[in-house]
Amino acid sequence: MKKLKRSARLVEMTQYLLNRPHTLISLTAFADRYQSAKSSISEDLAIIKEVFEEEGLGELHTLAGAAGGVKYTPKMNVDEAKKIMESVCRQLEQPERVLPGGYLYMTDMLGQPGLLADIGRMFATAFASKDIDVIMTVETKGIPLAYATAACMNLPVVIVRRDNKVTEGSAVSINYVSGSNKRIQTMSLARRALKEQSRVLIIDDFMKAGGTIQGMMDLLHEFNAHVAGVGVFVESGELESEDRLFEDYVSLAKLTAVDLKTKQTTIVLGNFFDNPQT
Amino acid sequence: MKKLKRSARLVEMTQYLLNRPHTLISLTAFADRYQSAKSSISEDLAIIKEVFEEEGLGELHTLAGAAGGVKYTPKMNVDEAKKIMESVCRQLEQPERVLPGGYLYMTDMLGQPGLLADIGRMFATAFASKDIDVIMTVETKGIPLAYATAACMNLPVVIVRRDNKVTEGSAVSINYVSGSNKRIQTMSLARRALKEQSRVLIIDDFMKAGGTIQGMMDLLHEFNAHVAGVGVFVESGELESEDRLFEDYVSLAKLTAVDLKTKQTTIVLGNFFDNPQT
Repeated sequence: MKKLKRSARLVEMTQYLLNRPHTLISLTAFADRYQSAKSSISEDLAIIKEVFEEEGLGELHTLAGAAGGVKYTPKMNVDEAKKIMESVCRQLEQPERVLPGGYLYMTDMLGQPGLLADIGRMFATAFASKDIDVIMTVETKGIPLAYATAACMNLPVVIVRRDNKVTEGSAVSINYVSGSNKRIQTMSLARRALKEQSRVLIIDDFMKAGGTIQGMMDLLHEFNAHVAGVGVFVESGELESEDRLFEDYVSLAKLTAVDLKTKQTTIVLGNFFDNPQT
Repeated sequence: MKKLKRSARLVEMTQYLLNRPHTLISLTAFADRYQSAKSSISEDLAIIKEVFEEEGLGELHTLAGAAGGVKYTPKMNVDEAKKIMESVCRQLEQPERVLPGGYLYMTDMLGQPGLLADIGRMFATAFASKDIDVIMTVETKGIPLAYATAACMNLPVVIVRRDNKVTEGSAVSINYVSGSNKRIQTMSLARRALKEQSRVLIIDDFMKAGGTIQGMMDLLHEFNAHVAGVGVFVESGELESEDRLFEDYVSLAKLTAVDLKTKQTTIVLGNFFDNPQT
């Protein structure tokens, strides 16, 4: 790369960092890339850090010393997250979204790349301090949320199939009982899709009693892998808490009441906002 | 936002543009946001434009005049795309990827957010000049590709289900014959998921004869919607061309030979590289 003026270098470094979240970049690499002194690079990074943090884009951690470097950790500050999720809650309360069984139509919202990027940053904020190797979800609606989170955290995604028609070599299948309709269902994952001992963040779109997520946890057990966290976009809070299959999860929104006759719902902020990690 | 120094403003504008692809931002909005003269904003944009174009990040179009503004169009230059896809082809040729029926295991690669972002930029480059309202794919493996493309093009995604268990109100189902195994299958889309007259870009991971994509086209017809383009990650070129159900598509890679006994495959660059739109 040719030697850049400082103004161009700032633009270049900004895009370079934004496109490589959760990746340690050595100051030497930057100095070589821009044919500049490390001291100039450090000054530039200080400017970028201030803007990123002021804008609530996340944190820029600089490690000093010979092995030093810089890492961009995308985060969202709690005020911005609250503003976005309050608007999401109002949209989810539209009566035409109520589906049979007390489910909510939210596929249209999960199709919007801008909102997904925001949700990904919220989950990345919630789980920033956890040691995670891979993000897992089950087809179909959780997939975009898992990828949006993965993009912010620089992690691979593994998708569990809802049948046993996996055509990808040997697979592990388990049966699980979906909490909502009490039916026995099957989910499968190709043996080669997940390494043993992986630390796994489970992401899904909607959780009632948590049977589907419990199924993913049981599947992880078969792979000798570990649950590093559970994040759901919307939880249904319409149950007695003893009916919930597990307690340790992060939700961004909570459906607290559905009246199937009037199609009135009440949706409030999820437990992410009880104790935000920002 | 408080008034920023020029260096900080460049960082801020860079992130603002990168996070809002395919969106016209008026110079007035920038001038207000940064409490700066439009002439300064224009100078900053010229610097950003030069870096983006030199780095192959895409184009920054500035429209002059009172209604003027700036729009960032993510693209990838053909040399970078070629380098990435040649490495992808070598990885896809690994013998352990050959699955029964001449399919390729590529789920692991489609789980990598960095590669997905690159592929998204390639499809965004291929279809940059098309008028598109929405991106469509069919579950499951095409979903991350569709979202990666959508993120670059600032478009919503619609996912067709492979069954008729759609729980999202009235749905349209069609039967289609998958070209590879000649079985009749069903795909469905909720009526409310797609507006009439939408111009739709179809994205999928793998195409043999094209039966699944033809099915999506038939489904679009039921919605009075239009095909604006078809993009596939890997096409199988193992057929006589008269067996292909349609001709107008963009592929990034092409499987030209599979030997099921030796598990040797040959994978070359797709037709995207015959006449790249960069």
